[in-house]
Amino acid sequence: MEQTSGLAPGFAQANLAILPQELAGDFQEFCRLNPKPCPLLDVTEPGSAIPKKAASSADLRTDLPRYRVWRDGELIDEPTDIRDYWQDDLVCFLIGCSFTFEAALIRAGVLVRHIEMGVNVPMYLTNLQCAPAGVFHGPLVVSMRPLKPADAIAAVQITARYPDVHGAPIHLGLPEQIGIADLARPDFGDPVPVHDDELPVFWACGVTPQSVIMSAKPPLAITHSPGCMFLTDIRDDDLAVG
Amino acid sequence: MEQTSGLAPGFAQANLAILPQELAGDFQEFCRLNPKPCPLLDVTEPGSAIPKKAASSADLRTDLPRYRVWRDGELIDEPTDIRDYWQDDLVCFLIGCSFTFEAALIRAGVLVRHIEMGVNVPMYLTNLQCAPAGVFHGPLVVSMRPLKPADAIAAVQITARYPDVHGAPIHLGLPEQIGIADLARPDFGDPVPVHDDELPVFWACGVTPQSVIMSAKPPLAITHSPGCMFLTDIRDDDLAVG
Repeated sequence: MEQTSGLAPGFAQANLAILPQELAGDFQEFCRLNPKPCPLLDVTEPGSAIPKKAASSADLRTDLPRYRVWRDGELIDEPTDIRDYWQDDLVCFLIGCSFTFEAALIRAGVLVRHIEMGVNVPMYLTNLQCAPAGVFHGPLVVSMRPLKPADAIAAVQITARYPDVHGAPIHLGLPEQIGIADLARPDFGDPVPVHDDELPVFWACGVTPQSVIMSAKPPLAITHSPGCMFLTDIRDDDLAVG
Repeated sequence: MEQTSGLAPGFAQANLAILPQELAGDFQEFCRLNPKPCPLLDVTEPGSAIPKKAASSADLRTDLPRYRVWRDGELIDEPTDIRDYWQDDLVCFLIGCSFTFEAALIRAGVLVRHIEMGVNVPMYLTNLQCAPAGVFHGPLVVSMRPLKPADAIAAVQITARYPDVHGAPIHLGLPEQIGIADLARPDFGDPVPVHDDELPVFWACGVTPQSVIMSAKPPLAITHSPGCMFLTDIRDDDLAVG
């Protein structure tokens, strides 16, 4: 089992994206313009795989359980170590992950269906466009968690306290308004049932930057493999505000 | 025009309930147990009509535009001054009012339909029972504001900052779940349309304590007349937390 869900409870996990320096400026601007899907936890110096802020003793080339390597937008490898692909011009981006706010929901007694079911969260492409930056543009991807209305209200308040891990939901209740025709057919992840007494609640999702990077077809891009996140030294509590 | 909506912007307005001392302890406990519909801003000493905390130079027997006087649960008078009904054993309760959070919503750019339309907010009896205390028991009354999903999410965050004026919504999206069969037929106030791209959002309402007092049929009770609130010296900003 390589998935990192449930490992190191109390510490934030992160999405990884690695790009050549010539694209890194545009991508960082894309993240700044779209903080809900792309909350930046750390950015390395060009050629460095050490995330000084998130985990100063880590090596992002070896410390994730599995990676995906993309050339011109095509998946070419899924290694457990990327030292063979390393270049001196690569910049690593660590982007907040919903595991932190899901832990906060569970602590508050709000059940999270996909975790209860032991499947991946359902994710959907929306008709909402991210703010573009250079070659990076594309639709917002959202994750969905079905909640009873009172729990949805609590979840808004709880997740709003975690702006660095996607923050408050971006939508709830009316999926067709954001271009989702069928909740039973997610674009990524697994479907989960939405009961009659529940509303679908949608959060901006860390798959957004991956989706945007892939459609930009950079000469080289490296990401974490789905579910195989980077374990930071940042405490979940330190990401809470207010 | 006697209604106080829009008067003294920036200052909190309050619902008024006056009861004989023999019932005041139970009612105060009812408010403590049900803080969302009954957020107590101030309670006077028996026989005093001076709300020391909310407006120390005010006289609650004369300073509201219109009152309602009830004997054994029956409305017997709607005077503009209650000195003729005053007794040395009366206790006055000031309960937070949604005007404060509506002002905050409007400042944040969230349109409030009933204000735009110039009508009273629609209110509904629900199937949710308040926690009882002594003779006081009954259903929660809610007010409803239709909002687009993104505005509903913002409204949860904004109104959660005002726990002394009903705080965050208690429900949204599925009115039948809380016993509301037809949004077009409110139990109090005026109907407002809910558009296809909107969700009905429900807040605990200050009509709840009035409804509960009436059904307890106390020998004497005095309340404000609907919309004719008490203007406090408390700044809206001072009711915000976080």
